[in-house]
Amino acid sequence: MKEYVVGIDIGGTNTVFGFVDQQGNCIQKTSFETSLFPEPKEFVEHLSQKIQEVLTQLPDTNIIGIGIGAPNGNFYNGTIEFAPNLKWKGIVHLTEMFKTYFHLPILLTNDANAAAIGEMIYGNAKGMKDFILITLGTGVGSGIVVNGNMVYGHDGFAGELGHAIIIPEGRACGCGRKGCLEAYCSAKGINKTYLDFLKSEGKTPEIPETEITPHFIFEKAKAQDKTALKTYDYTGAILGLALANSVAYTSPEAIFIFGGITNAGDILFEPIKKSFEDNLLNIYKNKIKILPSGIKENDAAILGAASLIWNTIATHS
Amino acid sequence: MKEYVVGIDIGGTNTVFGFVDQQGNCIQKTSFETSLFPEPKEFVEHLSQKIQEVLTQLPDTNIIGIGIGAPNGNFYNGTIEFAPNLKWKGIVHLTEMFKTYFHLPILLTNDANAAAIGEMIYGNAKGMKDFILITLGTGVGSGIVVNGNMVYGHDGFAGELGHAIIIPEGRACGCGRKGCLEAYCSAKGINKTYLDFLKSEGKTPEIPETEITPHFIFEKAKAQDKTALKTYDYTGAILGLALANSVAYTSPEAIFIFGGITNAGDILFEPIKKSFEDNLLNIYKNKIKILPSGIKENDAAILGAASLIWNTIATHS
Repeated sequence: MKEYVVGIDIGGTNTVFGFVDQQGNCIQKTSFETSLFPEPKEFVEHLSQKIQEVLTQLPDTNIIGIGIGAPNGNFYNGTIEFAPNLKWKGIVHLTEMFKTYFHLPILLTNDANAAAIGEMIYGNAKGMKDFILITLGTGVGSGIVVNGNMVYGHDGFAGELGHAIIIPEGRACGCGRKGCLEAYCSAKGINKTYLDFLKSEGKTPEIPETEITPHFIFEKAKAQDKTALKTYDYTGAILGLALANSVAYTSPEAIFIFGGITNAGDILFEPIKKSFEDNLLNIYKNKIKILPSGIKENDAAILGAASLIWNTIATHS
Repeated sequence: MKEYVVGIDIGGTNTVFGFVDQQGNCIQKTSFETSLFPEPKEFVEHLSQKIQEVLTQLPDTNIIGIGIGAPNGNFYNGTIEFAPNLKWKGIVHLTEMFKTYFHLPILLTNDANAAAIGEMIYGNAKGMKDFILITLGTGVGSGIVVNGNMVYGHDGFAGELGHAIIIPEGRACGCGRKGCLEAYCSAKGINKTYLDFLKSEGKTPEIPETEITPHFIFEKAKAQDKTALKTYDYTGAILGLALANSVAYTSPEAIFIFGGITNAGDILFEPIKKSFEDNLLNIYKNKIKILPSGIKENDAAILGAASLIWNTIATHS
């Protein structure tokens, strides 16, 4: 009997799930559009059926639990709470709904926390007890691990480093406040930096503003475009400062940076590392690593979700 | 047989110790000048003799451990590392030295961490699993508790919130960097704010600059002096922002503020609370308490140090 955990990644666009073994191999990856189900109950029913369908095709297979990563997921309550990118409004008791279909351990957390646990179980944080993972994407998320345990906080919502205010009275953020890390280091934030620099140089972008992406800016930076390079330098400087501040909280052994934006490699990592060391308090200098995630981006969300369950088993055995 | 823990508070000026029972009663408080002993070995010898002297005067008494709070104390190594306010240079293996004299559990941490554990065992944080304690004094220190455990970080130096950079390129800090919380909210920082405001108003202080203290400014604020009130408003605004940021890391149930400066009461707490709520991310609003410490300042350091040991016993029994 081969044992698997079902890892589920609920996104604004698609929901993807797969069967993940203890070594982090993911099989039977299946996806469908999240928005097809405006009612969470119908979503859970459909997803449960899909999982059962896959299961009946796999002989000698046992599922030992279900791990779910979701935007605004609350680990303590198994709920999704006021997720701006999902159609479901208010507080959705997701794990409770799943329990109608599966009598198994079911755990849920937000995507960034799931990614951090995934990093600890399968990625570059293996064996580390104190680390932080930052996700750069549409938003800036984070997961903080202290002494081998995920930090959830008193309400299940700890680890919102994307909404630490880095520049008081700075750039407007989607959250309604000003100067948050996310306003500078999310995809949208990086695009804005590039456009602001172009404007200050009296230039206009080569392509429509709405088509600009961090990847486009990266391609230009690779070709030594000065505005594009300046954009990555600025992004790295802000992120390095934010990460140096985060060390003053939990003093991690390493900080992992996750997300497609990290494909920019040294063009992003060099300015981050420089700003990080420049802004660190003396006692922390030259001992904390800034590293890329060690998990393939395609599987990361499912692996992270599944690791919620595998992590519990590792801890208790 | 009555059981006690010896709580030791090592300060730049004085070292104070006392015998603390599980209920937080402190007896036989004794103090001497730290600087009388330029060599840590002589210091430990003298302190150990003093403890033995007290012990011989107490019939039916058993000491079950020694807890030490010290500047730059490292919990993992039992060391004091490069403490700027002590005569002892480099890394001092303090708990190791004590073990020559006592075959008991001996634990050491920095003063702010000790104060946080003291708050959890004896003070206003009783029963809380997630909180932060900030100490306002010569410096700004902090202790972070997550899920009932002190956050020490990978190197034992977590929780330096006084050195999170709140205003990039802001006021010079004693640590050599700019814009740290400590540069604004330590005693010296508050004095500087007052003097800066006076200067901008074209005024000179009534007393010599070197004699100005937060207490002096508080007395003037009580008498409705506008510059003094503005000073506390500004201090509270910066601290409130810093505390709102700290919530984005560990989402505590409460934040405690500790130190003589808190005697200013509402004149300090009102602007802190206002700025804190104004700067909080939506999901955290109106649920996190800002509270004064519940431990008498005179005994706090000794109680905090002793609680290092009592906390271990509470956890393991």
